[in-house]
Amino acid sequence: MDTHSLNRTRAGDHVLLLSPDDKRYLVRLTPGARLDTHRGYITHDALIDQLFGSAIKTQLGHAFLIVHPSTSDWVMHIKRASQIIYPKEIGYIVLQLNIVPGARVIEAGTGSGGLTLALARLVRPNGKIYTYEERDDMLARAQKNFARAGVLDVIEMKQRDIRAGFDEKNVDALFLDVREPWLFLAQAHAALKGGGFFGALVPTTNQISALLDEMNLRADWTDIQVVEILLRGYKPVAERLRPVDRMVAHTGYLIFARAIRTNPETTFQNQIKLSASEEA
Amino acid sequence: MDTHSLNRTRAGDHVLLLSPDDKRYLVRLTPGARLDTHRGYITHDALIDQLFGSAIKTQLGHAFLIVHPSTSDWVMHIKRASQIIYPKEIGYIVLQLNIVPGARVIEAGTGSGGLTLALARLVRPNGKIYTYEERDDMLARAQKNFARAGVLDVIEMKQRDIRAGFDEKNVDALFLDVREPWLFLAQAHAALKGGGFFGALVPTTNQISALLDEMNLRADWTDIQVVEILLRGYKPVAERLRPVDRMVAHTGYLIFARAIRTNPETTFQNQIKLSASEEA
Amino acid sequence: MDTHSLNRTRAGDHVLLLSPDDKRYLVRLTPGARLDTHRGYITHDALIDQLFGSAIKTQLGHAFLIVHPSTSDWVMHIKRASQIIYPKEIGYIVLQLNIVPGARVIEAGTGSGGLTLALARLVRPNGKIYTYEERDDMLARAQKNFARAGVLDVIEMKQRDIRAGFDEKNVDALFLDVREPWLFLAQAHAALKGGGFFGALVPTTNQISALLDEMNLRADWTDIQVVEILLRGYKPVAERLRPVDRMVAHTGYLIFARAIRTNPETTFQNQIKLSASEEA
Amino acid sequence: MDTHSLNRTRAGDHVLLLSPDDKRYLVRLTPGARLDTHRGYITHDALIDQLFGSAIKTQLGHAFLIVHPSTSDWVMHIKRASQIIYPKEIGYIVLQLNIVPGARVIEAGTGSGGLTLALARLVRPNGKIYTYEERDDMLARAQKNFARAGVLDVIEMKQRDIRAGFDEKNVDALFLDVREPWLFLAQAHAALKGGGFFGALVPTTNQISALLDEMNLRADWTDIQVVEILLRGYKPVAERLRPVDRMVAHTGYLIFARAIRTNPETTFQNQIKLSASEEA
Repeated sequence: MDTHSLNRTRAGDHVLLLSPDDKRYLVRLTPGARLDTHRGYITHDALIDQLFGSAIKTQLGHAFLIVHPSTSDWVMHIKRASQIIYPKEIGYIVLQLNIVPGARVIEAGTGSGGLTLALARLVRPNGKIYTYEERDDMLARAQKNFARAGVLDVIEMKQRDIRAGFDEKNVDALFLDVREPWLFLAQAHAALKGGGFFGALVPTTNQISALLDEMNLRADWTDIQVVEILLRGYKPVAERLRPVDRMVAHTGYLIFARAIRTNPETTFQNQIKLSASEEA
Repeated sequence: MDTHSLNRTRAGDHVLLLSPDDKRYLVRLTPGARLDTHRGYITHDALIDQLFGSAIKTQLGHAFLIVHPSTSDWVMHIKRASQIIYPKEIGYIVLQLNIVPGARVIEAGTGSGGLTLALARLVRPNGKIYTYEERDDMLARAQKNFARAGVLDVIEMKQRDIRAGFDEKNVDALFLDVREPWLFLAQAHAALKGGGFFGALVPTTNQISALLDEMNLRADWTDIQVVEILLRGYKPVAERLRPVDRMVAHTGYLIFARAIRTNPETTFQNQIKLSASEEA
Repeated sequence: MDTHSLNRTRAGDHVLLLSPDDKRYLVRLTPGARLDTHRGYITHDALIDQLFGSAIKTQLGHAFLIVHPSTSDWVMHIKRASQIIYPKEIGYIVLQLNIVPGARVIEAGTGSGGLTLALARLVRPNGKIYTYEERDDMLARAQKNFARAGVLDVIEMKQRDIRAGFDEKNVDALFLDVREPWLFLAQAHAALKGGGFFGALVPTTNQISALLDEMNLRADWTDIQVVEILLRGYKPVAERLRPVDRMVAHTGYLIFARAIRTNPETTFQNQIKLSASEEA
Repeated sequence: MDTHSLNRTRAGDHVLLLSPDDKRYLVRLTPGARLDTHRGYITHDALIDQLFGSAIKTQLGHAFLIVHPSTSDWVMHIKRASQIIYPKEIGYIVLQLNIVPGARVIEAGTGSGGLTLALARLVRPNGKIYTYEERDDMLARAQKNFARAGVLDVIEMKQRDIRAGFDEKNVDALFLDVREPWLFLAQAHAALKGGGFFGALVPTTNQISALLDEMNLRADWTDIQVVEILLRGYKPVAERLRPVDRMVAHTGYLIFARAIRTNPETTFQNQIKLSASEEA
């Protein structure tokens, strides 16, 4: 392995450029192209074959640092038309939904594709993200985001009203980012493997209540968890350390659950019979 | 692929058992073994070849649900001797440090191994977690946790005082969970690839200041981010929705940065020369 | 004015005793009485004619500090049978409801009387707190708390189902700490002066929605504000500064509004007529 | 008492005008004056002798509601040149520092006077706020704010470097909102009565540490408390209840303590002698 080349940018690489004043540019290096910034321009040719972690100047003399984009950078840099799910929520979703290499995951709706993209990077090489979206304009935008991020190989996009159900069975996890997730619990349950991981994000407390209500009625979900995650940034100044002045107060509430074969607490007798019939 | 068998527990599987009152048991199914709970016992033989998502009763008649453990479950169930890093922080670390399948990551100290275990599950099949720990008792406990979780194949444990530096070069990311992370910035920088991802967790504000101070002095770190993450749970009751009464107020502060070839803002001339000499 | 005597404890004074390990005892100094603590006892006679801010030892040699109780101390030391409203909420209520010396305030239900007591201390000498409570056991306990705190002179207690309305008119502010505050909006409005301050505390989001719903229907409330207040404590250690491990995640949501003569946005024509008729 | 007149605005009253789109105007009614708003103007003459809680239209037909300003409104409407202390902090300060009618309180620095004004409204009729400020421009602005709010009678302003100490003795409470509060602990202690209430607000963690450090060295403070208060607003919409998108993440940290005659835990022998000599 040639360590030297590993440390240098190549045509086709995605790189993140950090300006002296903390602006961020995520670009795919393309011979002949040019990056225009608020501090002047840099040709892609000048950016190619540079050491990662080094700086390069615009024609105006401003030094930009060349680094790799993180999953967070990818999420924050997608072209978006809708409210995105932030890295603070995505990270927790990854751990709760047991997203690991090889996992098969359904997601609806696709939206701008930020969560899709993050999950796609984590299920490689053998996993798959099946993402459903009704609106073609959203799907078209998301596809561009996926193509740019080079994750199309692990994503399957479906333009579909999920009322009709999902094509896949026995998926490991399923996430709903839709207005009325309670309408699709039967479909979600049918697609998940036994004990599979369910998650949803909703912005309002009324939606939480509606979802919990339906879950209780259905009696085939357990280990229900409702949380919200707050991230507070600090000004990184050693001798005057303090939180930033303002923060995001709300992205959405996260609800997690596991798909079971009816809840034994309320309907254990039915559950036993159901299991027996399934084996027949 | 036999879908039927996929949905059934087999000897050797790790399963999570959920009690009627929300207790959780993470067990590896072993023929002949017995699980003793606060609600009676279940033999492992009875747990084998059951449908995931189904329930099984203890000899006292209490129904336990059988599901898969998530990464969060693994982290929360390790045998621990020290303060652990919680899933809310681990999830964000995953996204900020660009943990993806194939990543090579250094971590110190190992502690009880919760973060190690979570990262190990995500870098498979070709990645590697190099974890450093000075205390042999901690390392022994962590090794048991790794063995139980079946992740020893992607973890390399090293009993070492990291003052002497790390063995690896060009790693993608490096995380420090030690008392005085500022003492090891040179060693961390030497191990990271150019632009590589650095993270640290410290419990006190004094430690944040000390770390920021040293980072500024060294001038070879950028994109410094200091955050804290608060997770607030809600009682999952549709008609009386409200946050739980008490919550964890503090785990630790997270600091992230990227390793660069000196900071161009302050020492750009030096930086140019340094880069040039590296190419010689 | 005899400064000397001002600084010394006298029989009848309320004093707060702080133990070496942060326990707190709020006592009224009574000749002949004895304070029994987890670290031994102190006679009240020994506590009388001591300098405030000085220490006194139990018979076991443990030194307790003698200080004045604050309004927060009074609230936290009442005998309670129900969930109390914490100082963090009471302080904000004081500022939002314009509680000042001389204010006339209605409150229901009394509960353990913590909020009542705090408000009573602030409306002196000419103000009055009218507190309504249906349950006689609650009212009896509250009365003891008021007597102990010496605030009975500014409190009027009424055992009453508030469905029948309040006796007072033109009060400056009104606060509801009841399960279904939306049932009493007409009664509250009738008791408040024009533009008067309304507040309520409810523990669940469903109750917020029900209250907002009814307020909108009635169209005679404005400037509606819904907030929650989080207080995070820090361990007061200079060289290892950090938040405490756990905190109260939820006391309740606060809702504030002003009583108006119908909302001009939706029903301005009606409002004009109503005002005119009131003047007739 | 003439209830009718109580409910009507009079020349000289302070009223708060609420616009249809939630803008707020705090004005003193002055015959002949005119209020210019973003939605047209209203003459003060038209505003005089109106019912509180009623609406009045601008010449453009927009209806404004007339209500009383709360203490919060006063704080939020002062002319300010510096970072203010918010109602969420002021309310808690009131309860911790035992601010009640009749209290004598020192405050430094005055700043824009928001805290001063709020405390002044609460110590009436016999209390007093002694407020110290070094800068004459700040003091001039604060004085205008006090005059406008009609609280000059309970405020004593002093242009002074507090290094030289405070004029008052035996005050009930003292609050420092200065950059380096640890420099003035001796002066604060000398001004407070025994067991008196001390508070401070600082924006950075380094300042908390410096203050705690000095308090420990001096050993004449106890019951030290460090907190921060977070207020989260909700959009008041019944059927789509959710927190607002963004919030204030940080105003400052609050530190509270009580002035004692040396700390018995570390220096009890000295303390006994000191007390004895004071009595001589």
